[in-house]
Amino acid sequence: MTNTLMLTEELIRLDSVTPNDAGCQERMIARLEAVGFTVERMRYGDVDNFWARRGTSGPVVCFAGHTDVVPTGPLDKWDSHPFEPTIRNGYLFGRGAADMKASLAAFITSIERFVAQHPGHPGSIALLITSDEEGSAIDGTVRVVDALEARGELIDYCIVGEPTSNHVLGDTIKNGRRGSLSGHLIVHGIQGHIAYPHLAKNPVHLIAPALAELAAEEWDQGNHHFPPTSWQVSNINAGTGATNIIPGSCEVKFNFRFSTEHTAETLKDRVHHILDAHGLAYELHWTLSGNPFLTEEGTLTRALERSIKQVMGVDAELSTTGGTSDGRFIKRIARELAEFGPVNASIHKLNECVEVHAIERLSDIYEAALKNLLL
Amino acid sequence: MTNTLMLTEELIRLDSVTPNDAGCQERMIARLEAVGFTVERMRYGDVDNFWARRGTSGPVVCFAGHTDVVPTGPLDKWDSHPFEPTIRNGYLFGRGAADMKASLAAFITSIERFVAQHPGHPGSIALLITSDEEGSAIDGTVRVVDALEARGELIDYCIVGEPTSNHVLGDTIKNGRRGSLSGHLIVHGIQGHIAYPHLAKNPVHLIAPALAELAAEEWDQGNHHFPPTSWQVSNINAGTGATNIIPGSCEVKFNFRFSTEHTAETLKDRVHHILDAHGLAYELHWTLSGNPFLTEEGTLTRALERSIKQVMGVDAELSTTGGTSDGRFIKRIARELAEFGPVNASIHKLNECVEVHAIERLSDIYEAALKNLLL
Repeated sequence: MTNTLMLTEELIRLDSVTPNDAGCQERMIARLEAVGFTVERMRYGDVDNFWARRGTSGPVVCFAGHTDVVPTGPLDKWDSHPFEPTIRNGYLFGRGAADMKASLAAFITSIERFVAQHPGHPGSIALLITSDEEGSAIDGTVRVVDALEARGELIDYCIVGEPTSNHVLGDTIKNGRRGSLSGHLIVHGIQGHIAYPHLAKNPVHLIAPALAELAAEEWDQGNHHFPPTSWQVSNINAGTGATNIIPGSCEVKFNFRFSTEHTAETLKDRVHHILDAHGLAYELHWTLSGNPFLTEEGTLTRALERSIKQVMGVDAELSTTGGTSDGRFIKRIARELAEFGPVNASIHKLNECVEVHAIERLSDIYEAALKNLLL
Repeated sequence: MTNTLMLTEELIRLDSVTPNDAGCQERMIARLEAVGFTVERMRYGDVDNFWARRGTSGPVVCFAGHTDVVPTGPLDKWDSHPFEPTIRNGYLFGRGAADMKASLAAFITSIERFVAQHPGHPGSIALLITSDEEGSAIDGTVRVVDALEARGELIDYCIVGEPTSNHVLGDTIKNGRRGSLSGHLIVHGIQGHIAYPHLAKNPVHLIAPALAELAAEEWDQGNHHFPPTSWQVSNINAGTGATNIIPGSCEVKFNFRFSTEHTAETLKDRVHHILDAHGLAYELHWTLSGNPFLTEEGTLTRALERSIKQVMGVDAELSTTGGTSDGRFIKRIARELAEFGPVNASIHKLNECVEVHAIERLSDIYEAALKNLLL
């Protein structure tokens, strides 16, 4: 059993359902202190975080990630217990195997080998670890970034260990993510009996043409780095269940995933413009989960591509698709940021797993990246 | 206390929440048999109904109505117990006071006076009474009508005692009702994660332009007797509550109130045409509650108008607005049918009531109608 596999299993055994860290970070800290890191524990609210650094000069290469995992779902639907790491058919099964305890283990073992070979390496190696990425993400990475920013401590190259690979380890690097903006719309009408429509105002009828227009809108065409901005309704509800009542209001929840061709403000303006043009009486509550961020092709993406090619013989693609990640917070203090980790096909599902073979290869890729960036 | 008020109170005391008759019909039957009616009890399923007739020749003047009442709602919100008739400020309070136990009592006392004065009256007087008008209406009036139709027993003039008056007793006669056609539409899409819209098909987006078109459609302009056909959505639902999932389907419940310018079939065709033109994958389940029916101005409406004018000094208006009633079933075997009864402002609500003064006047109007139609 390899070193990285052992540590991955050790971390999976700790039931760190978000926002619990369950001792994962102390295991990591012990290993990092043993190889000369200075570690700063930053607990905010119920959330454990830490910032660790080896070296005082630049450039600063930072590995970032989270120890928390999503809930297991029904235990009886797992083929083996989610917190009892189990190898079957070349895969390691367990909650967090792919998202992202294999990456955390690979961070540690790659650093240990690199430091052993280059104890006086130039620049600095850092880790930014949270236990609240899968949850509300309020007291996690964003708070650590606030603290670092406040004291002017910046990152040159940040590698977030999220599972970005699609089919084989190394096929995809994320060099940015779309923004995410949500809206909760309540359109007001006047409730009434369905037999007396002239005394009522049907909010479903009022919203329908505006919804049609919003659904048909081409927000932008995307750009070289981003797919087109997408607007999607997740929920619509009106009516009490009674079939003889015109409802008094209609609620719509929607979400934008948006490219750098837009800002949250330009999207909000456009939505309000469309709703106002239809003369609707409405309330609209906005939640901005994250602005889009992007790292142009450069030192970091090239170093990762080269490392992947060296270890796996695979040509990685750059992508900005998919959900949000803590990269949205770190980008604020990181000159270049990219996300790279194992295959994500099983994440957040029953029987989450990672290829056993890929675990040590991931550690090799991170080690190669340290060499490519620091030496 | 007048005779009609006493019988109204007696009927309110019987807790006849639909479809229970709770003995109301036997009280009525005892009074009718005492003045020479032949009574046929027709129990179908859990529902008590009866058909009573005095006379064998034509014309047949029939009073129709129901003994069942809608549920009380929260008892503690009533100012007096709904099954304990109570007079306050000139109003009689109790569940069913207006809908329609005052009418039932007025049927009986008007007949008693008329028969006492005209024991050998020409034509026939009939009653068609059910205890399932407020409920599913499956084993009620429609079954009695089936039985009468099967043996060729027809009605010349039917007066349904529904509470049709708006502000004062006598201001409104209903000489027809719109049809009611309901649809339950399920539009199918493909569920998916909101960050990957290209892998999903959002049913809310698919239905929106069709909904807009249906809401904007002018189905007809109505006619001399009917307001324009109206289409209204009562319920729309899509989404699981989760804000990051594109829903797999969208459900819409809607209802037509339609004039004689349309049939259920022409409306269905038009809806399918619009949905198909939008290329939707859908299921649509139809329920026809009733076709529109109409009694042109003629002998019955003129007799009712004259009776109201004689008793109340009020000029009644003819109307076809409002919800459905059992008139939709009876019209099949009735040459002329109209609905007339007390003020409907409080029906189906807490503290249902009827003006005490109006109860005896209603009996006077029904008695005048018998005279105007039979003598």
